[in-house]
Amino acid sequence: MIDFPAPVRRLVAAFRQLPSVGPRTAERLALHVLKGNTALAHDLADALREASEGIFPCKQCGFFADQELCEICRDATRDSKLLCVVESPTDVLAFEKSGVYHGFYHVLHGTLSPLDGIGPDELRIPDFLERIKKLSAEEVILGLGHDVRGETTALYLAGELREMGLRTTRLATGISAGSGLEFVDSLTLSHAFNDRKPMNA
Amino acid sequence: MIDFPAPVRRLVAAFRQLPSVGPRTAERLALHVLKGNTALAHDLADALREASEGIFPCKQCGFFADQELCEICRDATRDSKLLCVVESPTDVLAFEKSGVYHGFYHVLHGTLSPLDGIGPDELRIPDFLERIKKLSAEEVILGLGHDVRGETTALYLAGELREMGLRTTRLATGISAGSGLEFVDSLTLSHAFNDRKPMNA
Repeated sequence: MIDFPAPVRRLVAAFRQLPSVGPRTAERLALHVLKGNTALAHDLADALREASEGIFPCKQCGFFADQELCEICRDATRDSKLLCVVESPTDVLAFEKSGVYHGFYHVLHGTLSPLDGIGPDELRIPDFLERIKKLSAEEVILGLGHDVRGETTALYLAGELREMGLRTTRLATGISAGSGLEFVDSLTLSHAFNDRKPMNA
Repeated sequence: MIDFPAPVRRLVAAFRQLPSVGPRTAERLALHVLKGNTALAHDLADALREASEGIFPCKQCGFFADQELCEICRDATRDSKLLCVVESPTDVLAFEKSGVYHGFYHVLHGTLSPLDGIGPDELRIPDFLERIKKLSAEEVILGLGHDVRGETTALYLAGELREMGLRTTRLATGISAGSGLEFVDSLTLSHAFNDRKPMNA
């Protein structure tokens, strides 16, 4: 039976390896690339090669680096008393964009998920526990999400950190800035109520 | 402000050029590729390069080819009295899989969409009209979808073909094989009713 020529089939198979790309989407992506758009194919091929060869996790914190230490870990002006644990490199950017934090980071590259076989050793948790022993940090901020996996990971890390006598904090739950009460689910609202703060009018 | 190193940003930008990939998805794809998965990056880069350099539209019909004419156009056993017009190379495979058709194809690489600036000259329609003049075809099958853009394209082509005195046909609308009536929309049902066929019991 007639099928696509082998290089097209290989391209479809390669796209299928990407997360949440099924057979239909993979085919659509391949067709788009082949629709006379050689520039796009070359762009993407070059970018993949360059990034996969020139970028690796920072040896210290796990953020993206193009040398042994990333831009953040090389920055001597940062507050070495603070260490913020996050799930992914994107979360580092979120903190940086907010401008609220000027300490160091530790990127776990995932969250604990025992059912999927992701335990502490599959993440950068052993590195973290090693690193924290040598550091002069006074506070560890668990900058993890408030979803089930984020909570699980935070609880696990808090347990490990308790014995070290470090101040461990967690991001507040509450109402989003700019949000009306009608958009707030009841769990969030009860957290926000319990953590209410005095107003200085 | 801290951002991803340049190669990562370039990879995100390259992914964003793919259809229906927004900024979030592009970032997620790039992070997945960089999560220590060099093999995937190389696979995809190689496949892109190989396909974009070794595959081009068949000079005659527009299906994928790795030489001047595709496998189908080179096949002398096919019925040269039949020519089927389809939107994309995938549609060729759909016909081939069904096993119902053994003529030649013409792939338009899209459908007419005046609002998006896609007129006949943006598709392989001029090629088609040239080709049909030289061919010994007796029937042109408009193997296009029954959505608005497919209908528009079919109507346009039927108009062009009328003057050439060729038999022009269109795929039947009707109930899907294996479908119960409860899943059939009323437009499809009215088409199926009007095109009802005598049963030879």
